[in-house]
Amino acid sequence: MQFDHAGVATNDADSLAELFATLFDAPEVHREEFDGMTVVFLELDDGYFELLEPHADGAIARYLDSTGPGLHHLALATDNIEAALETARDAGVELIDEEPRPGAWGHEVAFLHPKSTGGVLVEFVQH
Amino acid sequence: MQFDHAGVATNDADSLAELFATLFDAPEVHREEFDGMTVVFLELDDGYFELLEPHADGAIARYLDSTGPGLHHLALATDNIEAALETARDAGVELIDEEPRPGAWGHEVAFLHPKSTGGVLVEFVQH
Repeated sequence: MQFDHAGVATNDADSLAELFATLFDAPEVHREEFDGMTVVFLELDDGYFELLEPHADGAIARYLDSTGPGLHHLALATDNIEAALETARDAGVELIDEEPRPGAWGHEVAFLHPKSTGGVLVEFVQH
Repeated sequence: MQFDHAGVATNDADSLAELFATLFDAPEVHREEFDGMTVVFLELDDGYFELLEPHADGAIARYLDSTGPGLHHLALATDNIEAALETARDAGVELIDEEPRPGAWGHEVAFLHPKSTGGVLVEFVQH
């Protein structure tokens, strides 16, 4: 699989987008309102940062409350998300999403439960 | 810049390496004892997971005690780490490493302070 993006929980996507563009040569390439959040994608040579700024209650708002801003999840790209989920299921991994669902930027996504994956919240994403 | 690796703090690098190899088609490609830790690199199509299992006190051991296992840092590859640090300095980012230092696998590395980068612990790495 390929690295797709690092998801970052933030209270200030605009400032972080500007900083990361400068530090990492990662310009903003997409922005949308999704699921009660401002979602901003910054493009690396081989993937993205996904900045997540919530405006309503939800998983990211609760994460910010409990943990504070920072790395939230790691997304890996696959061209067959159903097969990736089946492999995870066969390996005994608990799934947050039993089936792919629509994510930001029109992608299909599914999350694995971090308690099954060494504490890492992993997202499978299919463009 | 390019994604280089996601650093994962763990109490059991062997089990996690086996699981991630299965889930993400990310085979183990390097292993060493470094700075009181077992460090295991798993290869994605375009980067790595770096699993960090400490055997002595240090930053990762303290992270595991305080936060538990999971995503610890994100590393971005550069072919000019001195210039990357200079850009960060100019942007007002606090540096953990003012100068590059030897990291695992013979790489030159330098960390930025997460309080300057939205809570994300970022490592610059030059192979």
